[in-house]
Amino acid sequence: MPIRFFTAGESHGPGLTAILEGMPAGLPLTGEGINRDLRRRQKGYGSGGRMQIEKDGIVITSGLMNGKTTGAPIALHVQNRDFKSWKERDITPITTPRPGHADLTGAVKYGYRELRLSLERASARETTMRVAIGAICKTYLRQFGISIDGYVAQLGDIVADLADMPLDERIARNEDNDVRCPDPVAAEKMHAAIRQVKIDKDTLGGIFEVVARGVPPGLGSHVHYDRKLDGRLVGAMVSIQAMKGAEIGSGFENAGKRGSQVHDEIVIDAGGKLSRATNRAGGLEGGISTGEPIIVRVAMKPISTMLRGAGSVDLATGKPNPTVYERSDFCALPRAVPVGEAMMAIVLADALLEKLGGDSLEEMRPRFAALRRNRLEDLPMDNMPWRFGYEV
Amino acid sequence: MPIRFFTAGESHGPGLTAILEGMPAGLPLTGEGINRDLRRRQKGYGSGGRMQIEKDGIVITSGLMNGKTTGAPIALHVQNRDFKSWKERDITPITTPRPGHADLTGAVKYGYRELRLSLERASARETTMRVAIGAICKTYLRQFGISIDGYVAQLGDIVADLADMPLDERIARNEDNDVRCPDPVAAEKMHAAIRQVKIDKDTLGGIFEVVARGVPPGLGSHVHYDRKLDGRLVGAMVSIQAMKGAEIGSGFENAGKRGSQVHDEIVIDAGGKLSRATNRAGGLEGGISTGEPIIVRVAMKPISTMLRGAGSVDLATGKPNPTVYERSDFCALPRAVPVGEAMMAIVLADALLEKLGGDSLEEMRPRFAALRRNRLEDLPMDNMPWRFGYEV
Amino acid sequence: MPIRFFTAGESHGPGLTAILEGMPAGLPLTGEGINRDLRRRQKGYGSGGRMQIEKDGIVITSGLMNGKTTGAPIALHVQNRDFKSWKERDITPITTPRPGHADLTGAVKYGYRELRLSLERASARETTMRVAIGAICKTYLRQFGISIDGYVAQLGDIVADLADMPLDERIARNEDNDVRCPDPVAAEKMHAAIRQVKIDKDTLGGIFEVVARGVPPGLGSHVHYDRKLDGRLVGAMVSIQAMKGAEIGSGFENAGKRGSQVHDEIVIDAGGKLSRATNRAGGLEGGISTGEPIIVRVAMKPISTMLRGAGSVDLATGKPNPTVYERSDFCALPRAVPVGEAMMAIVLADALLEKLGGDSLEEMRPRFAALRRNRLEDLPMDNMPWRFGYEV
Amino acid sequence: MPIRFFTAGESHGPGLTAILEGMPAGLPLTGEGINRDLRRRQKGYGSGGRMQIEKDGIVITSGLMNGKTTGAPIALHVQNRDFKSWKERDITPITTPRPGHADLTGAVKYGYRELRLSLERASARETTMRVAIGAICKTYLRQFGISIDGYVAQLGDIVADLADMPLDERIARNEDNDVRCPDPVAAEKMHAAIRQVKIDKDTLGGIFEVVARGVPPGLGSHVHYDRKLDGRLVGAMVSIQAMKGAEIGSGFENAGKRGSQVHDEIVIDAGGKLSRATNRAGGLEGGISTGEPIIVRVAMKPISTMLRGAGSVDLATGKPNPTVYERSDFCALPRAVPVGEAMMAIVLADALLEKLGGDSLEEMRPRFAALRRNRLEDLPMDNMPWRFGYEV
Repeated sequence: MPIRFFTAGESHGPGLTAILEGMPAGLPLTGEGINRDLRRRQKGYGSGGRMQIEKDGIVITSGLMNGKTTGAPIALHVQNRDFKSWKERDITPITTPRPGHADLTGAVKYGYRELRLSLERASARETTMRVAIGAICKTYLRQFGISIDGYVAQLGDIVADLADMPLDERIARNEDNDVRCPDPVAAEKMHAAIRQVKIDKDTLGGIFEVVARGVPPGLGSHVHYDRKLDGRLVGAMVSIQAMKGAEIGSGFENAGKRGSQVHDEIVIDAGGKLSRATNRAGGLEGGISTGEPIIVRVAMKPISTMLRGAGSVDLATGKPNPTVYERSDFCALPRAVPVGEAMMAIVLADALLEKLGGDSLEEMRPRFAALRRNRLEDLPMDNMPWRFGYEV
Repeated sequence: MPIRFFTAGESHGPGLTAILEGMPAGLPLTGEGINRDLRRRQKGYGSGGRMQIEKDGIVITSGLMNGKTTGAPIALHVQNRDFKSWKERDITPITTPRPGHADLTGAVKYGYRELRLSLERASARETTMRVAIGAICKTYLRQFGISIDGYVAQLGDIVADLADMPLDERIARNEDNDVRCPDPVAAEKMHAAIRQVKIDKDTLGGIFEVVARGVPPGLGSHVHYDRKLDGRLVGAMVSIQAMKGAEIGSGFENAGKRGSQVHDEIVIDAGGKLSRATNRAGGLEGGISTGEPIIVRVAMKPISTMLRGAGSVDLATGKPNPTVYERSDFCALPRAVPVGEAMMAIVLADALLEKLGGDSLEEMRPRFAALRRNRLEDLPMDNMPWRFGYEV
Repeated sequence: MPIRFFTAGESHGPGLTAILEGMPAGLPLTGEGINRDLRRRQKGYGSGGRMQIEKDGIVITSGLMNGKTTGAPIALHVQNRDFKSWKERDITPITTPRPGHADLTGAVKYGYRELRLSLERASARETTMRVAIGAICKTYLRQFGISIDGYVAQLGDIVADLADMPLDERIARNEDNDVRCPDPVAAEKMHAAIRQVKIDKDTLGGIFEVVARGVPPGLGSHVHYDRKLDGRLVGAMVSIQAMKGAEIGSGFENAGKRGSQVHDEIVIDAGGKLSRATNRAGGLEGGISTGEPIIVRVAMKPISTMLRGAGSVDLATGKPNPTVYERSDFCALPRAVPVGEAMMAIVLADALLEKLGGDSLEEMRPRFAALRRNRLEDLPMDNMPWRFGYEV
Repeated sequence: MPIRFFTAGESHGPGLTAILEGMPAGLPLTGEGINRDLRRRQKGYGSGGRMQIEKDGIVITSGLMNGKTTGAPIALHVQNRDFKSWKERDITPITTPRPGHADLTGAVKYGYRELRLSLERASARETTMRVAIGAICKTYLRQFGISIDGYVAQLGDIVADLADMPLDERIARNEDNDVRCPDPVAAEKMHAAIRQVKIDKDTLGGIFEVVARGVPPGLGSHVHYDRKLDGRLVGAMVSIQAMKGAEIGSGFENAGKRGSQVHDEIVIDAGGKLSRATNRAGGLEGGISTGEPIIVRVAMKPISTMLRGAGSVDLATGKPNPTVYERSDFCALPRAVPVGEAMMAIVLADALLEKLGGDSLEEMRPRFAALRRNRLEDLPMDNMPWRFGYEV
């Protein structure tokens, strides 16, 4: 896997850090593209008060010279502006774990009773750095005409009506409203639903979709389980805080259909170009990209921190004690969309780098141009009588 | 990741091979446990003719002495009994790719026109070795009282009624019928549905569930994206041939609910034991096992190879040409259940080995016994006034 | 491999960053231990002017709360104090590559002509962060009574006379002088040799030794090539800038001897404790620690940047042009010692974490106490008649 | 790392297995090239009796169709012909560990008293599969004009006089005699020395050199410690059984010299081709290949199993007991040469695959042809005024 990265940092600590190793040299990179996605991650109806405090801005201290990557590891930093106030005031220990969060599981695993020791790291604040890294990967992919975008498809029980809306339109409209839903009618209902859970001091989740357009065929591989692009994408999505499931295209819905309704007919045009009449496979067959848009749908659970409280136990006393919070998000789904985009960008940049190899953008350009592209003429004729193995 | 493995082998080649690296020494292991799961993988209504030919039996040539593992890599072999006949007859080249399979994507990626070069490896025959490796991991887990089982929850559009059936009962009944569905009424309908698609020369998929019972709390971690157990489990499942989605518990359904309906209240009993009133989280919070059963649901698409054929193109001529097959499965869902179990067993054995460390079963036993188990008294009190980092 | 880390940062850029993933929770950690090793890395006769400018101090922004690690990734930062001046003045491009450095190889690999794009990262300034990470690993190892130390054994052609000096004494004296050589007579000659190469505008290298004491038997493994501790140690050493070779114990010298002169007799004392009469193996047999001190010797080439210049070519003009430098180190060997210590600490902490498993220091302590320690009674009797494999 | 492999198998078990993952499609491969190196590994003066018994022959059961690789994992098998006799006779337990071998360290690590449980795997018999995998990597490298060869440079205390013999000649003569030493005078002395240790029931080691010719510049990288080609090569060498040290070029000798005597002047010819006047760097600078031959020297200790016996302890009784053997090698150095070649071939094939990327030989050929080759004109002019990072 050519791309490797670590993120570090706690939610209320001094700041967040990430190192991205494996980006080729020569990629033009400013912080603005990154900051745009950082801002998208901080914007979305349903957030609590913190998003007013933090205005994330990226600082890059290595791997970038003269506005281009050098091939060296890229160090990224985002300050927690909130930290100053935390540094000075007295902090009350937190000992009542929230159901649904890593509070209790983290405490049991690592041996804490003060839950802040796990919750500070488990917080979705960490996704800031995934978005930053993802933005660099998007910049890389964009050099080859590949774009990654996402939108909300369902919020709580409100399902957007997207069946007849082409992908391009969904994407064009994904920033039209503060719930990131391309269906304006559904968007209004979603907005109202969030308003209501605020009143009810409850929370909501939902489903978002991320789409990659312009991906060449041939990324990923069928030859070994850990090289399959579908497993890698789905695993990356569910590694995001609060995500509980993911599917390629309409994986779960298609499971209820017949083969004849699901598989995408292969067609050829006059120029010898092979393509699909439909894209029910969501852009992947056999763990390999087909050349059609890659679509992943991700299920997010409702936020664990609920102002109404939840039944729990105070670990300091061993007595039942409901969780109590004063400030929290009510629905983070719209803000999760850029995080999902980031994870897809990282996985696809990784897969593209495997396919292209090399160390600089300049070295990769002719290689990309020469990729086989579902054209019959690209495929060598190799029909000799065949046999397996050696000496068997 | 302590456990590493490779599988190798083609569907009609001389045989299948796997190497499993990272198993501790001293694990009692015979081939019978493996063969039991291999047979389960070969049994299930909806299979085509091949399952009559192959009766898989494992051969272990290394890493095992005196009936116990030695800590050395374990080499596993399964012969393809079918191979003899393939060796002698003349093989017709296959040049019309099946929609839904890796035929075309593999050909484009690797530069073939003879599709056998990709389809032989992309075949689900490969899962034989995953099942074998998974059976060893199950044996390891069983030493610590952890069991892994699965069953069919939906086949085509027939949904089993499992809401009121306890997990233990679902598992007790999962081999009651040839569709591996614990709901006998649904099972009958599923059987009939497969019979009908056979007549229609079409195919079916569905949804299965895999459950791990007895898992201690604290496997996986929230601290880094690639250590989260939910992402690892879901990624492993979707790496299986034909799987298009996976969720922890009822991830997609819960995405439509409110937080107050989804999160699992934490309760404490008189002995200071913490547990959950419900298990909607599917056994994982913050990417860490809670100690409740881990439940993963997996969506399988209908089989790609359809006797009725599918629209495609003959790569030899460039002309439209429907796929033509004489022999194929109609529904492989029941047989996919042990494959899903295997992948879960591998991921959980890996996570348990991370938690326990060490090199032999004997070394691990007291470590397992000393694991923190959601008991208040296991958690050290550590509530000193706190601060972040150093010199910030 | 439980421990993973990345370093980032350029020699004259704004600063250095590292992230260390995999440290258990509960390790008491202040920056002072790290700073002590950072200062050791900056001190040693033979340095050029820069060491006067930089006084490295560590900042830790994550993974550390209340003075203890939390189990989360640890982000480390060192500012380049020099950066301010670099930010403002006009930088002359460097286009004449230095023989021996990554100047030309980096330029060819990544496609640069401005050599600063590779030399800034290739600089040994990067080892600052290895030393910082290594200091954390030393702190971890020290919890279990394991210590790592190093000293200079040869500088240029001056060989220290250490044959009769016990390891403990070599280590006790390793900071006695500014060339880090425990033999005071040799140390004086080494000092003089450096003084002379300064006059001659030339450079010197040499050989240092790193020793780990208190390592329990059983780290590493013979079962697979990439788990062998000797290969891992030697590979880590030669990954340090300017290192061209490494050996376990006196590997090269022993290659010229007979087996009867090299192998270490196994003896047993009255208490059933097995040990070795000698330690010519350097603490490793079969890629596994024996329980004796682990000794690695590392060969460092003379510094590539020479004030006298070296024959080269100006890439801007294509004309022969000697390299020209105004400021440089003359001999970095004494300062390389703590870097070697750091790499050994990282490899051994990794191997110990594999052996112990778990997530917190508290969890690991009883496991360490229970390790088998070359005592006969720890080894189970298991002499049943034996056979290989299954069904073979 | 594109190339991954596992080996499995015990010395006297039924056979050896390996799986190689990551080879591109389209590589012409027969077993003969592999068998040639397997035979070289079995031939060499100084072996004991076993080499008369085993005549290794490779069987390939997957990843190979029509005599070409398919891109799928390659499964390799070598039968242990000796096994049949072992299967039937009664085996005496071995309880007296040999100094120098993994007998005792393995027993302590894994918890055995019957030493066969570790020594069967620790045996150099395992290197058979490294040689097989290395032979495939050599075949891959040869497609691009890269060759890997080795020879003995020192055996016991007899040092071959190679200073004035060009590399090509050393390689041309490396199979001239049964000690694999290109210097015929030294070869005769080496032969005699082995004859003498046979009489003395003692053993010998020595130093061999492995050389890669035709390697393009730009493999490996300076940007991160684990991507440096020198560390990877040296680590791979010392992962071989009985190897205790390794150096790039004359690393240890050069450590005693001045910079002006060590570094290789850069020169340019009329055609703009940059090269080195000498190759003291052994083909690597900054962890990157220079384009000159890569030379690694490896120190092998004398064989641990000595007919004369060595002081040890019987673990069954706890009494001092010398090791007793009836059959053993006296000097395995000549036979270690092809093992060293194999490890270098694996590391370099891996590094070349990183550089080239892609999935088939056909895809890689134009990429290889376009590599930058130390020509001035290949390096883009990029001398703009420069700055570090973003927003710093």
